[in-house]
Amino acid sequence: MPDFPLDLTEHCISTQTLSSGVMLTVKCDQVRLPNGKVSQREYVVHPGAVLIVPVLPNGNVLLEKQFRYALHQVFIELPAGKIDANEETLTTGQRELLEETGYSAKEWIKLGAQHPCIGYSNEVIHMYLAMDLSQSAHQRDEDEFLELFDASFAECFTMIQNGKITDGKTIAALFLAEKYLQTHS
Amino acid sequence: MPDFPLDLTEHCISTQTLSSGVMLTVKCDQVRLPNGKVSQREYVVHPGAVLIVPVLPNGNVLLEKQFRYALHQVFIELPAGKIDANEETLTTGQRELLEETGYSAKEWIKLGAQHPCIGYSNEVIHMYLAMDLSQSAHQRDEDEFLELFDASFAECFTMIQNGKITDGKTIAALFLAEKYLQTHS
Repeated sequence: MPDFPLDLTEHCISTQTLSSGVMLTVKCDQVRLPNGKVSQREYVVHPGAVLIVPVLPNGNVLLEKQFRYALHQVFIELPAGKIDANEETLTTGQRELLEETGYSAKEWIKLGAQHPCIGYSNEVIHMYLAMDLSQSAHQRDEDEFLELFDASFAECFTMIQNGKITDGKTIAALFLAEKYLQTHS
Repeated sequence: MPDFPLDLTEHCISTQTLSSGVMLTVKCDQVRLPNGKVSQREYVVHPGAVLIVPVLPNGNVLLEKQFRYALHQVFIELPAGKIDANEETLTTGQRELLEETGYSAKEWIKLGAQHPCIGYSNEVIHMYLAMDLSQSAHQRDEDEFLELFDASFAECFTMIQNGKITDGKTIAALFLAEKYLQTHS
């Protein structure tokens, strides 16, 4: 790991809210750059999210197909959802897995965190591996539409390589989950 | 690859711009859900970006350390930048690699595309492998601060596993680049 000899920090001078929708808050800060000049930085304020890699007893991964409006496209992705106020990330993971898929898991393993959009969002996604799954009924909101299916890790990696899985958070998490399972089996 | 028996599409009823900053445009659309109900979708409008996996003659990957204001943190990431109006993605890749790192590449291989933030942005990141590199002077903007270093693929994967690399686009692209190089060497 190399050193950071230069101080690359940009310091906040002032902050203002550009827009505050039902879902998205966007801020614009005046910042002082490392060379002393002043510039602007705009970014989405996000509460953080939790993503789950649910592994079925046969070793397959449980995946979702979901329509994502921003891109007008159905995506294959891992279950994930936003952290509620004051919620522990493990609780978010357990809640989202149950709500979206109807599965609960006995074993939860933290895989780490990823930052999906460092250019213009402060979102962090905490990632968990969920093992020893058992099924009950899902508890999706009536306005939440998705389909479930499962695939082996090998099938997932083929879908990444042939462009059927392009969701960044899902690619990163599948990669980390497989590395974890390889090291700990 | 499973079928999509249900139509999960959400149809646009109307669209409005919530905010239009120097960098970020945010829209809010009224949409009709698959069950006929009406809801709202907010999203960032993005021109798309190109990411480069630059591989040095010794097989190491060229990486950047850059301060990202939204998260107030220095990130290790691959070179990337936004597509200019009417620009071909290959041209963006060549331009950004030269501007940010001072390197040009003789061989450019398309690795595919990823979507970093499907929940609230229409951004797509096109990914290229850049081989046969040669160095000249970088052409960074005077307000662009970053440091370069290189690491082997094995070192990159260690940095992903121990949480030193958490940038989602970088994790996904390193994974795809290594798979490509494994299959084509």
